[in-house]
Amino acid sequence: MSKKLTSRAEDYSKWYNELVVKADLAENSAVRGCMVIKPYGYAIWEKMQAELDRMFKETGHQNAYFPLFVPKSLFEAEEKNAEGFAKECAVVTHYRLESDPDNPGKLRVDPNAKLEEELVVRPTSEAIIWNTFKGWVQSYRDLPLLINQWANVVRWEMRTRLFLRTAEFLWQEGHTAHETKAEALAEAKLMNNVYATFAENFMAIPVVQGVKSESERFAGADETYCIEALMQDGKALQAGTSHFLGQNFAKAFDVKFTSKEGKQDYVWATSWGVSTRLMGALIMTHSDDKGLVLPPNLAPNQVVIVPIYKTDEELEKITIVVDGIIKDLRAKQITVKFDNRTTYRPGAKFAQHELQGVPLRIAIGARDLENGTVELARRDTLTKEVIALDSITDKVEGLMTEIQEALFNKALNYRNAHITEVETFDMFKSVLEEKGGFISAHWDGTAETEEKIKEITKATIRCLPLDGAFEDGVCVYYGKPSKRRVLFAKAY
Amino acid sequence: MSKKLTSRAEDYSKWYNELVVKADLAENSAVRGCMVIKPYGYAIWEKMQAELDRMFKETGHQNAYFPLFVPKSLFEAEEKNAEGFAKECAVVTHYRLESDPDNPGKLRVDPNAKLEEELVVRPTSEAIIWNTFKGWVQSYRDLPLLINQWANVVRWEMRTRLFLRTAEFLWQEGHTAHETKAEALAEAKLMNNVYATFAENFMAIPVVQGVKSESERFAGADETYCIEALMQDGKALQAGTSHFLGQNFAKAFDVKFTSKEGKQDYVWATSWGVSTRLMGALIMTHSDDKGLVLPPNLAPNQVVIVPIYKTDEELEKITIVVDGIIKDLRAKQITVKFDNRTTYRPGAKFAQHELQGVPLRIAIGARDLENGTVELARRDTLTKEVIALDSITDKVEGLMTEIQEALFNKALNYRNAHITEVETFDMFKSVLEEKGGFISAHWDGTAETEEKIKEITKATIRCLPLDGAFEDGVCVYYGKPSKRRVLFAKAY
Repeated sequence: MSKKLTSRAEDYSKWYNELVVKADLAENSAVRGCMVIKPYGYAIWEKMQAELDRMFKETGHQNAYFPLFVPKSLFEAEEKNAEGFAKECAVVTHYRLESDPDNPGKLRVDPNAKLEEELVVRPTSEAIIWNTFKGWVQSYRDLPLLINQWANVVRWEMRTRLFLRTAEFLWQEGHTAHETKAEALAEAKLMNNVYATFAENFMAIPVVQGVKSESERFAGADETYCIEALMQDGKALQAGTSHFLGQNFAKAFDVKFTSKEGKQDYVWATSWGVSTRLMGALIMTHSDDKGLVLPPNLAPNQVVIVPIYKTDEELEKITIVVDGIIKDLRAKQITVKFDNRTTYRPGAKFAQHELQGVPLRIAIGARDLENGTVELARRDTLTKEVIALDSITDKVEGLMTEIQEALFNKALNYRNAHITEVETFDMFKSVLEEKGGFISAHWDGTAETEEKIKEITKATIRCLPLDGAFEDGVCVYYGKPSKRRVLFAKAY
Repeated sequence: MSKKLTSRAEDYSKWYNELVVKADLAENSAVRGCMVIKPYGYAIWEKMQAELDRMFKETGHQNAYFPLFVPKSLFEAEEKNAEGFAKECAVVTHYRLESDPDNPGKLRVDPNAKLEEELVVRPTSEAIIWNTFKGWVQSYRDLPLLINQWANVVRWEMRTRLFLRTAEFLWQEGHTAHETKAEALAEAKLMNNVYATFAENFMAIPVVQGVKSESERFAGADETYCIEALMQDGKALQAGTSHFLGQNFAKAFDVKFTSKEGKQDYVWATSWGVSTRLMGALIMTHSDDKGLVLPPNLAPNQVVIVPIYKTDEELEKITIVVDGIIKDLRAKQITVKFDNRTTYRPGAKFAQHELQGVPLRIAIGARDLENGTVELARRDTLTKEVIALDSITDKVEGLMTEIQEALFNKALNYRNAHITEVETFDMFKSVLEEKGGFISAHWDGTAETEEKIKEITKATIRCLPLDGAFEDGVCVYYGKPSKRRVLFAKAY
């Protein structure tokens, strides 16, 4: 906390990295590409988990837990999925260490403890889960099977960044099996919609719902739904995906069911996930050059109270008043922390809470006690206001809603101002270069054109928006006929 | 569910294994020694987690998350800890798979993707966490550091059993750092006490709190506190441990702090954990030959309501009454499930809920509607009772407490009846053989005697009870003088 944060204008990427560390959210570990999620960051993730878990259960899903390891022979069963993840798999080959005869006090892998079959550390769990589902599904009475898992996964990424791309990350992965294609498609869309609702109502992040182009699909999926958000530097961030897997895994793992009519058929599948990457989206959507800005719905402490005092006697008097405030706020389900640490001065406390994005700060001093007032400071607008002590509960309750909405609207305005329709490839390039954001353009639907545009501009198709109206046009690159616009952007 | 459960008397071990699978708690997976925790089993674990997490936070702890992998060089830093776990480490040596040129469609480990340093899949996290704590602790103001992690760990066990001993398991591990030895000792005792409270009040399992003998201590600990429970077959089960780690890890990872007086010193440490093994203890303490018996405080469904009907019209009428019951019970925070599945007959539903240990079953038929009654069936006593419909809410609420207490008392009576004081080694052996349970005996305090007794009887010292009074006696084996009794038992 000693040094000022780099500003976003100066170096956005550096600003992000510094902020994550200085706000005590996460840090790099001794393991290449793996992070430590610090208590403050983890507390935000826990709030996300709690709400998502509630939404999953409300839509009929149950949690379960499947092994961390996937035997290689299962991993390779669904060919596209295996091919898609093979290049980033951590592989366990041995099950024992022994004393290293050449280095006293050191250990080495015991060459006699080689596994007969290598174990892949799950990069995603379709293979191990579908191998299990085979035993769980016999008849239509076992369907739909609606399972979710909270777990860690490992993808050996070469370039990593805290929260956004780490070798190990935490996530939830839903895996469902259905009688019909229509049901599975409806499930995939439903869960994408759950993600969108969560992003907008809790994270205060507006998202575009859409489907991925074929080349951006999850390996093994027939269709990938997604939610796409826009960061303050004009780059897009894929915040969640929900896949319609067709019968690909059912066939690879031979998962069949007997229908009401007594016929045998393969089941239809979905999988869907969000991860600690959401933390990156949350940070980059709202925060500013002073530090983190958190929406009240996800802030570990929605309110912090800082006493301003010179003597122990003053602190005692303030504490009596604060105890009353806390009681009233907690009765309204508002989480509040009384920062009465004696080891730090008010200025240092203000700086810390600003850096850590506490939505609302209340300061109370001796003069406030005399006047029957308190000072409120909003983190999002950085504005202060002195109010009557006896109006505080209603005022704070109102502000929680107001701040939550203000953050969403600010992000929405920014996002809407950064969706640009372009008709020519020159304009595509200049908008991308000068303004960033989503570019809404006609595309001829071929992977070749998509690849060409990516090669030249580094922009990818983020999605074919679900609410996108169909209209006749010509592809922005080759000029071939097109029936709809898609969203391009540079992306995290 | 087609076949009857093996009885406990017939084959206790087989009874356990069958019960875990048939009650839908867990099953073996395709990965050697790793289990799949099924939704019903996971729902019980989630209830345990929620309560423990609440207790940890109430005692000032914060959750965080540390990497799954431990670089070998960190793993070996604390020598005793490394030595203790080296033989059961899963080791990641490579980070990529590639197409196998000799087997089309198959993958193999890419020999060019060997890690420079092997990564141990955490069997416990002291090493990676203390390496991180080094950066978190500078002064007394950073202490105490009270951290907990919910995570999966891997210990390559050769003989595994569902929940009791699995290669991968889920657990929580607390890791704390303190200014003084006294504080760290107090923390270790406090958390052992939290475990005991949880076991008794939620799991309805009476436990003995004690300390381990030196040879049974956690590798790297100076003292290990534990809670020991007794299963129905007379074998003990270590249900949780809390370690005072002295300055061992602080020294291995050079974690020092500056005191108020400006002096530098190593911090003092604890770690403590409980795992999915608790599920095994829960199952084996209360269940019977009909299946699982769950204490209301941990049952995913405390009450299940089964309608008995012949026509759709009858079901409709019953449903109206049931909706009212559900509303009233939920208002009392009682979790209740209406099993109105049309694909199963009441008999099959009764059998399933009995097998799955739902504490209370309510059956309502057409005749009940006429008489204004319902039938209650208690899972623990297997008794039935017809009561007036209008008394149901109070009755059920009372029964939740009554059943919880009854289970605890039954287990306590059994446990107390199975602590036998013995004075001679002959009696030691005959009690162990014929009755089992805890044997309270004098021991001369040497590892040699302990090992000898273990060799002959397979009984180990479970603990030196914290509430054990000191008394003069002679060691049950060699006859040397002893100042206190310790508890021996065969154990899981």
